[in-house]
Amino acid sequence: MNVNLSNSTVAVVGLGLMGGSLALALAGKCARLVGVASGPEAARAAVARRVVHDATCDLAGAVCGADVVVLATPVRHIISVIPEVAAHMRPGALLMDVGSTKGAVVRAMEALPEGPVTVGGHPMCGKETGGLDSADPALFEGAAFVLVPTARTTPGALALASTLVEAVGARPVVMDAHSHDRAVAVVSHLPYVLACALVHAQMHAAGEDRAADLLPAGGFRDTTRLAASEVDMMLDILLTNRPAIEQALDLFTAQLAQVRALLGEPEPEPDGLLAWMERAQTRRRGMFR
Amino acid sequence: MNVNLSNSTVAVVGLGLMGGSLALALAGKCARLVGVASGPEAARAAVARRVVHDATCDLAGAVCGADVVVLATPVRHIISVIPEVAAHMRPGALLMDVGSTKGAVVRAMEALPEGPVTVGGHPMCGKETGGLDSADPALFEGAAFVLVPTARTTPGALALASTLVEAVGARPVVMDAHSHDRAVAVVSHLPYVLACALVHAQMHAAGEDRAADLLPAGGFRDTTRLAASEVDMMLDILLTNRPAIEQALDLFTAQLAQVRALLGEPEPEPDGLLAWMERAQTRRRGMFR
Repeated sequence: MNVNLSNSTVAVVGLGLMGGSLALALAGKCARLVGVASGPEAARAAVARRVVHDATCDLAGAVCGADVVVLATPVRHIISVIPEVAAHMRPGALLMDVGSTKGAVVRAMEALPEGPVTVGGHPMCGKETGGLDSADPALFEGAAFVLVPTARTTPGALALASTLVEAVGARPVVMDAHSHDRAVAVVSHLPYVLACALVHAQMHAAGEDRAADLLPAGGFRDTTRLAASEVDMMLDILLTNRPAIEQALDLFTAQLAQVRALLGEPEPEPDGLLAWMERAQTRRRGMFR
Repeated sequence: MNVNLSNSTVAVVGLGLMGGSLALALAGKCARLVGVASGPEAARAAVARRVVHDATCDLAGAVCGADVVVLATPVRHIISVIPEVAAHMRPGALLMDVGSTKGAVVRAMEALPEGPVTVGGHPMCGKETGGLDSADPALFEGAAFVLVPTARTTPGALALASTLVEAVGARPVVMDAHSHDRAVAVVSHLPYVLACALVHAQMHAAGEDRAADLLPAGGFRDTTRLAASEVDMMLDILLTNRPAIEQALDLFTAQLAQVRALLGEPEPEPDGLLAWMERAQTRRRGMFR
């Protein structure tokens, strides 16, 4: 297959935060960029803002001439559209995605009849605001970009996908769908659920005493940032990764039970509590350096 | 009493992040700044860096000549030192603190014999790194600064405390200790506990599959930031606000139980789940504007 990104026509399906940012980051790095938008208005806006060379709502028409198709819509839409997209792609072209969970996506790719080669993808970056207005060509800069080989992944397909990942400034990290989904359940989906639950708890507290509305500061702001995320994207994530998220919630609630025991009834255990806090502090201070 | 901050000698007990930042923010706004440090080395460093005019380890000697004494050490130390500090202050001088919980501090202030007038204080700002090296005169800029009147608070004492709060760039917010402690349990102490528990959950997950170490990104970073906080300060907070933190944990775990039910076994409830997510999103997007 053609592993030369610079000669390729790339079709990006979905021109929101992820698809828009990907298209902006690919500018000048492929021969032609085509976008598939959710409506004619969005398509016109993407072309007017030079996010892509051409944009359309005609999925089949956009993907049939592409060397690479990147699916960048919420996960359940990605899963549902894979058969139709693959049916219109030329044999040997590369179909990949940037969906946030990988098990169901990879299963849908592996269920395809002969046609494109496929690689699952997931860039570990984002923002709590969606849409093309939030798109940013630097979004992928320095981020891990998971690539999940499927039964239909050829060496050439993985090489081209890696080239694309590096072209947008990210680092390819190859792993299987199961490892990916379990890991993101803990480091991404669980934090989202906790942020929402914390906002709900504060809402209840403020309903009883307005003091809880007067005092939120930087700690609350950062801890709850993810609760502002786009709900369409997050709903698809939660619904396509339920078993792993339930396991992550089990891990988390075991920790909460431990800290409650240390905080104590009838008496606290300061030494045990301090040791638990110190392990978290040491661990967290060693991350993101 | 003398409500003129510019003529006052202010003694700051504790020259870490909070005391150091307060001293830096008060520069030029009071007649004289005296610091009480944890050791001679720290005292010399504070003077050399012009954080205070003079610094000492002699608590009694520093506070006996002060018009205002601000206690800026971890909460349990504040509580234990209040009787000794008050015994050496001149009658009518102002004793206040910047401790993170207020119930036990205010009880200690109210238990004093005749002597200083007292006001409890808590600025809603901070950093996850402590010590004089992290001190920043802009730390209080725009922050809510809770003032808790005690049985020993005179109108003049509250006016002088408010003047000091405004002098460092913060907004005085007067409330009672019970309201304060319940509110900060939800908006500050609960987020800290959740951040630590999330770090522990990730540590367990990474022990089973290294993928959990490869994928943490911005969401995990922000949600866990508080886990890097100074443990000495946080331990005192947890131990002096246990009933309110347990209530906050009850509120939170009720929300977790709700989202687990919506996520489903045997079947998820997408509409209910989406509604729960949307309420959190709307609420969070309306905050911190």
